[in-house]
Amino acid sequence: MRFPSPARYVLGIDFGTLSGRALLVDARSGREVATAVHEYAHGVLEETLPGSRKPLPPKTALQDPADYLEVLRTTIPQVLRTTKVSADQIVGIGTDFTSCTMLPTRADGTPLCYDPRWRRNPHAWVKLWKHHAAQPEADRINAVGRKRREAFIGACGGRYSSEWFFAKLLETVNKAPAVYAAADRFIEAGDWIVWQLCGEEKRCASAAGFKAMWEGPRRHAAGEVGGYPSRDFFRALHPKLTEVVRDKLGTDLRPLGGRAGGLTRTMAKLTGLREGTPVATGNIDAHAAVPACGVTTPGQLVMILGTSTCHLLVDGARQEVEGMCGVVQDGVIEGWWGYEAGQAGVGDMFAWFMDQGVPGYVQAEAARSGRSVYQLLEQRAAALRPGESGLLALDWWNGCRSVLMDSDLSGLLVGATLRTRPHEIYRALIEATAFGTRKIIDAFTQTGVAIDALHACGGLAQKSPLLLQIYADVTGRPIRLAASEQTSALGAALYAAVAAGVHPDIHQAARRLVQPSRQTFRPVRKHQVVYDRLYAEYSRLHDLFGRDTHGSMKMLRNEAKPLRPTFARGQNPRT
Amino acid sequence: MRFPSPARYVLGIDFGTLSGRALLVDARSGREVATAVHEYAHGVLEETLPGSRKPLPPKTALQDPADYLEVLRTTIPQVLRTTKVSADQIVGIGTDFTSCTMLPTRADGTPLCYDPRWRRNPHAWVKLWKHHAAQPEADRINAVGRKRREAFIGACGGRYSSEWFFAKLLETVNKAPAVYAAADRFIEAGDWIVWQLCGEEKRCASAAGFKAMWEGPRRHAAGEVGGYPSRDFFRALHPKLTEVVRDKLGTDLRPLGGRAGGLTRTMAKLTGLREGTPVATGNIDAHAAVPACGVTTPGQLVMILGTSTCHLLVDGARQEVEGMCGVVQDGVIEGWWGYEAGQAGVGDMFAWFMDQGVPGYVQAEAARSGRSVYQLLEQRAAALRPGESGLLALDWWNGCRSVLMDSDLSGLLVGATLRTRPHEIYRALIEATAFGTRKIIDAFTQTGVAIDALHACGGLAQKSPLLLQIYADVTGRPIRLAASEQTSALGAALYAAVAAGVHPDIHQAARRLVQPSRQTFRPVRKHQVVYDRLYAEYSRLHDLFGRDTHGSMKMLRNEAKPLRPTFARGQNPRT
Repeated sequence: MRFPSPARYVLGIDFGTLSGRALLVDARSGREVATAVHEYAHGVLEETLPGSRKPLPPKTALQDPADYLEVLRTTIPQVLRTTKVSADQIVGIGTDFTSCTMLPTRADGTPLCYDPRWRRNPHAWVKLWKHHAAQPEADRINAVGRKRREAFIGACGGRYSSEWFFAKLLETVNKAPAVYAAADRFIEAGDWIVWQLCGEEKRCASAAGFKAMWEGPRRHAAGEVGGYPSRDFFRALHPKLTEVVRDKLGTDLRPLGGRAGGLTRTMAKLTGLREGTPVATGNIDAHAAVPACGVTTPGQLVMILGTSTCHLLVDGARQEVEGMCGVVQDGVIEGWWGYEAGQAGVGDMFAWFMDQGVPGYVQAEAARSGRSVYQLLEQRAAALRPGESGLLALDWWNGCRSVLMDSDLSGLLVGATLRTRPHEIYRALIEATAFGTRKIIDAFTQTGVAIDALHACGGLAQKSPLLLQIYADVTGRPIRLAASEQTSALGAALYAAVAAGVHPDIHQAARRLVQPSRQTFRPVRKHQVVYDRLYAEYSRLHDLFGRDTHGSMKMLRNEAKPLRPTFARGQNPRT
Repeated sequence: MRFPSPARYVLGIDFGTLSGRALLVDARSGREVATAVHEYAHGVLEETLPGSRKPLPPKTALQDPADYLEVLRTTIPQVLRTTKVSADQIVGIGTDFTSCTMLPTRADGTPLCYDPRWRRNPHAWVKLWKHHAAQPEADRINAVGRKRREAFIGACGGRYSSEWFFAKLLETVNKAPAVYAAADRFIEAGDWIVWQLCGEEKRCASAAGFKAMWEGPRRHAAGEVGGYPSRDFFRALHPKLTEVVRDKLGTDLRPLGGRAGGLTRTMAKLTGLREGTPVATGNIDAHAAVPACGVTTPGQLVMILGTSTCHLLVDGARQEVEGMCGVVQDGVIEGWWGYEAGQAGVGDMFAWFMDQGVPGYVQAEAARSGRSVYQLLEQRAAALRPGESGLLALDWWNGCRSVLMDSDLSGLLVGATLRTRPHEIYRALIEATAFGTRKIIDAFTQTGVAIDALHACGGLAQKSPLLLQIYADVTGRPIRLAASEQTSALGAALYAAVAAGVHPDIHQAARRLVQPSRQTFRPVRKHQVVYDRLYAEYSRLHDLFGRDTHGSMKMLRNEAKPLRPTFARGQNPRT
């Protein structure tokens, strides 16, 4: 009698800004077997809510949680169907999610926006990571936190972001107190999807650490929940928040690599998987990419280049670095202090340029030569030498998340002449984001956190060799391009393999399953020399415009209020 | 027997940047009877010379003088033909020309570029006003002039421009000494066309005053030509220039309103006019517009809004105003001190934006709604309230001619976000030029030269009520839009009427022949308040970027050298 050893697989489900994807991975070889993508039907809600014509307030960015479930319902059966892998062969499920993307729910996990009573209130919906309307609330959190010398202030680089959990939550308290009262839970969407999958509200300790002021299972005074700031702090912030941790947050926090539970019967039916299949604790999308780049040790900065860029790094010691978004024990990779930094607008800014800044004649030229506009601009921008365009930009079209942590900052372009052409502006925007990355690297290394090499992954990294070469030239460091084109999903699958017990920990899983990097981009000396000069000028403008609280950008942002009338927001077709 | 009193007409011929036009005016009523336009076949030569593929140096802008004669050959017969006015009824011809647009010629007036030996040398061609390659030469002129305390330095606002006569001439000495040696004359194109018309080299004293350091018929040491700087100055500038005035410049300078001569037989044949028809002294195009706006007295600033903007003003006293381009006795209107100031890129900058910055979807939208892109942007930009876009620009896409007089400065846009749309940028560019105008007005009024009202004329003024309203709101002054759509040509015709003796002087001619203004734009108080704040910010950036000789713009301009490779310079179709 033969005992066959059937192949075993894990699923990584990655929830991004515009779509979700499932990735089926061979749990022993790391081979990526199949993938399926589902675009969110409602995308990002910035203008109006579904079924409404009422303009949303400025800087609003919402999502519909039903779109996330559609990802599970469509992509998982699709990868099973196309690969003919049976549900029995799937030994674990891992997920990763944008963060801080959060929503209010009922006690049973039902999103508040499903309720017709709340459906027309923007605060009942999912606030996406790039929802930037809570700056006043972030300002207040920082003021109160600094005055009380709360530990979280140091842990988040000195400035708690308007993108994060309690800023968004406080915005709801201020702007929609009835929504706050009606909600039983406020939860990271990444934890919500795990709750949906396994029926248990197990929250990701890492996300809580990076976005929600959690600092590990410490204890405050009797009756308080360990790890979060005290009731005194929350009371000082807003009286209604005194018991926010007890009343509105789940307190079962789980480390990365843990098992949150088994797949529910409902979800098994929805996805075609086996009931009870192990489900890993949730993870932040960018963080999941780190082991998927093969990085589980210090000195290696992982850049996840996409809509925005996330920079991740581990180190043996805890430092407070200007503009870092957070430092959390075991927060990125078990066993190390995990650091996160980021740039708020990268791919978004290039997309803006493609939509709003590329003239029709370039589109026509691209069409004539059988290329996309993107390909044409890349090719022309690549032919320019550093400095040649005479342009320099500050990359703050979506605010500045690092090192200044200020969403009220805005974009700047200097050096335009009547000879300036679109591919020159495009290159200047890429260069500006490279300078922004160098600013982050400088902040780390000057504080004593070493960075020897860079790793790049994410859609933008796969798409633009020009961008990676510019980043290598600007930072003076080699850049390794990840083998996988879907590192977050692969990372989620690695954690699924750990949760399923196929590999003992994430270090082993990464060592055994991750392929060598696809390509290395090395700095070109003569480019570095020019970029050193341009970076000095970037730094001067960076401080001039970014560190002056009475500067142009603040003044202009102030004049721009209230909301401008809504025109049809057309855009060039994506190519 | 009846003695009929047949109608009498004058012709104004206006030579612009891209085309020339003839305007036929009733010499008694001022009625504009007919007009004809001829576009220069060679336009502006910026990339290559005709028949050559060799790229021209950066900042080069040349023209072909043959194109000017084509204007005479085609437009004059055309207005005669369409109006059935006979040559006998044309009692005078006046011209106006862009300035300083200059060329080298033989002793008989033949342009050097007609000679096959020189045809491939860019310096043998007409250097158009916006030829900006002579900045090093302008720098040297200023250094030498300041050191020697030459009078022209004060008369041109402290900085002699790279656009002007001796900067362009010195560039030829430096870059093409053989062209300098071969030329018998260097002459304003406006004086050259008068020479062509009447066969006599009579130069316009006003143009010499504004562009060529001439200060009236003074006398230096024996043997020197009155009014120009001394030989010592020119020797200090460059030994080869010691005798430049004697050897290369015509010295018969004529005041505005004078008669240069009668039409030659050759030109009579070419144009169909009568031999001997009185030809007025040449004039600068923008200056000719002043009486055509009905302005012949102090306190009224005339803005000629076009490719660039020229600001003209007369006053009883001579002041030295920062950034003025010049102050010349009898230089704009007989009997007053004439002041000129200017902005280097206005219409050019909007055209750049239409060509290089308006995305295809806006073009498609305009096409669908049966409007031009321009109309669509105007309509949408007009619906914005001041400050609403959160954008602010420095209007230096073509350098800054006033008040900083520095062609190495470049454009800046601050405040861009992912929500920024094309019509918002368009409005920010208009506003930036309005702030630039206010800067000029401030410089005059702070020096004691009064400005009570503004007059607007030129293509851009006729085309954009939005622009005029913004200018009124930004400057806080009423703006009167000229009745004529071709004020320069009308001004040339007014001077023709004076040269012909129909009216005794330009004051009388303007009083009798110019129609009342078409429309008055009055400042809106609540807009003024916002624009006062934005202007303060503009002024801060203006000084920060414009007055810092080690600033970003200088640094970037420096990095951009040498010339970038030439890509096909596509553009959106003009609409």
